[in-house]
Amino acid sequence: MSVDLAPPFPGEPARANVITAVPGPKTEALRIRHQAFADARPIHVYQDGVRSRGNYLVDIDGNTFLDIYGHIATVPVGYNHPALDEAWKAGRFDWCKGFRPSLGVAPPAEWVEVAERALAGVSPKGCSQIVTVGSGAEAVENALKIAFAWKARRLRGGPSTEEDAREVMFNRQPGINQLKVLSFEGGFHGRTLGALSATRSKAIHKLDFPAFAWPVLPFPANRFPLADYAAENAAAESRALEQVEAVFRREAHTVAALIVEPIQGEGGDRHASPAFFRALRSLCSRYEVLFVADEVQTAAGATGRFWAHEHWDLDDPPDLVTWSKKFQFGGVHCKPEVMPAEPYRIFQTFLGDPFRLANWDVMLEVIRRDHLVEHTASVGAALVRGLTGLTHAGFYSNARGLGTFAAIDVPTPADLARVLGALRVQGVECGGSGTRTIRFRPALVFAERHVQEVLEHLTSATGRA
Amino acid sequence: MSVDLAPPFPGEPARANVITAVPGPKTEALRIRHQAFADARPIHVYQDGVRSRGNYLVDIDGNTFLDIYGHIATVPVGYNHPALDEAWKAGRFDWCKGFRPSLGVAPPAEWVEVAERALAGVSPKGCSQIVTVGSGAEAVENALKIAFAWKARRLRGGPSTEEDAREVMFNRQPGINQLKVLSFEGGFHGRTLGALSATRSKAIHKLDFPAFAWPVLPFPANRFPLADYAAENAAAESRALEQVEAVFRREAHTVAALIVEPIQGEGGDRHASPAFFRALRSLCSRYEVLFVADEVQTAAGATGRFWAHEHWDLDDPPDLVTWSKKFQFGGVHCKPEVMPAEPYRIFQTFLGDPFRLANWDVMLEVIRRDHLVEHTASVGAALVRGLTGLTHAGFYSNARGLGTFAAIDVPTPADLARVLGALRVQGVECGGSGTRTIRFRPALVFAERHVQEVLEHLTSATGRA
Repeated sequence: MSVDLAPPFPGEPARANVITAVPGPKTEALRIRHQAFADARPIHVYQDGVRSRGNYLVDIDGNTFLDIYGHIATVPVGYNHPALDEAWKAGRFDWCKGFRPSLGVAPPAEWVEVAERALAGVSPKGCSQIVTVGSGAEAVENALKIAFAWKARRLRGGPSTEEDAREVMFNRQPGINQLKVLSFEGGFHGRTLGALSATRSKAIHKLDFPAFAWPVLPFPANRFPLADYAAENAAAESRALEQVEAVFRREAHTVAALIVEPIQGEGGDRHASPAFFRALRSLCSRYEVLFVADEVQTAAGATGRFWAHEHWDLDDPPDLVTWSKKFQFGGVHCKPEVMPAEPYRIFQTFLGDPFRLANWDVMLEVIRRDHLVEHTASVGAALVRGLTGLTHAGFYSNARGLGTFAAIDVPTPADLARVLGALRVQGVECGGSGTRTIRFRPALVFAERHVQEVLEHLTSATGRA
Repeated sequence: MSVDLAPPFPGEPARANVITAVPGPKTEALRIRHQAFADARPIHVYQDGVRSRGNYLVDIDGNTFLDIYGHIATVPVGYNHPALDEAWKAGRFDWCKGFRPSLGVAPPAEWVEVAERALAGVSPKGCSQIVTVGSGAEAVENALKIAFAWKARRLRGGPSTEEDAREVMFNRQPGINQLKVLSFEGGFHGRTLGALSATRSKAIHKLDFPAFAWPVLPFPANRFPLADYAAENAAAESRALEQVEAVFRREAHTVAALIVEPIQGEGGDRHASPAFFRALRSLCSRYEVLFVADEVQTAAGATGRFWAHEHWDLDDPPDLVTWSKKFQFGGVHCKPEVMPAEPYRIFQTFLGDPFRLANWDVMLEVIRRDHLVEHTASVGAALVRGLTGLTHAGFYSNARGLGTFAAIDVPTPADLARVLGALRVQGVECGGSGTRTIRFRPALVFAERHVQEVLEHLTSATGRA
């Protein structure tokens, strides 16, 4: 019985097909030209954007890759979905053609209608207020700013003073620089200096950049399969919660927010249980700390729910939810009561991009029409079953995932580099998470046949690796 | 003799024309609908994006405004320039249609070609390396990160240590949190927490947000007309330079960068002389501090030169130049020798937007074809002459500008609110800078007849105000 609940992607290649070295000679020639003015070293391949289709990335050397990386989880409905082309031809992006507006000054009227449908229409329960920005880092920065303003108001019990206004111009507003954000080891929240102070994934992201003195705690990081490690996982979560409460008890007046990813999507695809997240939510409420679900990488369906935090079955929703990646721009949904009362405190020049919103609107229609979230839940279950099957041979371990937001570990960081290299040579566009994890971030059109194909590739890659 | 060096904008309205209250009833009705899910209070009007043309913003109530604010200085070639529509129809944006790439992972080949032409093709002298991002704030964050990494490497005299890598995960890498950025009172550099620590424009931008303990110094802020205040201005600049040198001498080992706008475009349109900026450049070189020209608002022609810092006639260019606004996305140009040697240290998911680059490419062609930078220099001179004429009546003062990046002061903050209100009612889309300055940020297609029209409006606005 098929696990696919969505139609096949029109015109998709049958399979990966590699015809040159990887990276190919045209990629390497273009990289040299590119390197003259930008850092092109991290680039896997240069893409043939027009010939890429569905789950298959075609590069300029003519190689076809099955894409499980999805441009770092940013591709919602595959490459060149016909709905986007039809929308383009039907004039649905015409209102974005003539200029890029400052959306806080004079937004085109269409912005309201489309944002109402495509952003307010997917608001997480309780989070009816939306701030749109450009990127995941900006989403996190703004969520933290909202939390700081909320905490400062509560601590003061009223508006800011003349002394506050005077001293803040010298970066020394009384009490404010002591405010902090609690995050977890392995968490990734972006690379601007505020967001980066909460990011704890890899040293290379943080080295030599000043950071705020904010606290960090171990993440419980469940081991898989869950049934084999139930007691150990429960104990780890319980220890982590005690440590969170200890920080809150000691620093209740200075911790403005706790920020956590539903799955640590850069720091090794580490999971925790819904009960753990529910307990975090309760602790935040009890100690008057805002609870930020950082869904930059998990939002928009990949986990088999539109928002990953829906898996937690919360009574009280997160206070703030950050998103970007598959939306293809960035933003924050939050509870109305946490927003600053005054205008202009959460503000920037562009505040989002109409063209990106209009694209997202079309893609969301496809997601709904083709039931891609339910489809992804079903395909993801098959993917994790298949990955679990691979672990029996002993090389791969810890198969895990929600939806197709899945992962599997290899023994060492050196193995990871070798397996990722082998997969690319075989025609799988892929990337790592943490130090020894293969990260699955395919588009929501990833289907059963792609599961079978990637499992075959993973099997042969161990031989090559 | 005409000061226009560019052709008239095809199909532009003859003049501003207001037919309702401002804001009009349709704007106010839509604002209520918008406010249900976002903060719509700062919005001037909702724009009719399709009917707006050239320098005239048409709103959904059918009012036509002469636009001197330009969506906070972000409109390069006016509304709905025919070249953009032609490019759309000719398929020049087709490569941006099918998905939004992560440009550090698998950029479409076209990205290299277009970036080479439209970004590397305008590189400031000496600044051949480019980092593309989403916004001005991200441009500044990345410029500062580059500066911190450069300074840390110099101070260490070598690569980071194992202790650095261990301690940075707890936000306490030895020596790094003492690194700082020197900025000026009145400077605006963006609103993410790192950029905001350098921003010193208004308390409302900074209140309740933690900031790094970075130093700030008075900006010399020339008075106008320059001829009347030559001695006073020279003395102020000389004092400011002494203060900069005192900070550098005292903290040479911790100041990584000095960041300065060519004109303080949010903090009151404050100017300094080319000699002042040349002296800053020299001091930075002498004390091994990187010199960041923050051209987020000034880049791309509005000052009558493509980069405002070209007015300074520097022997040694700025080390880093940040840009956004009229480019309609963001980035940093820098000297190759200041970039970190390792890949992935300056990185993010999207790293710019192909659609915005492709738009900029077309707009840059128009800027070159129609000589819009030279045109703006010529029209700007007429604008500043006209504004200077207005000051003789005593209400307006300090007429100033480079190109059409111009400004004029009114006596008090209350006058500013009244005059801006009167101008909008008369049909001028406008905004303030600092507490008592009218900010001119028209598109590069602003022409002699618009100068005449806005001068008439400014004259009548004083009567109404």
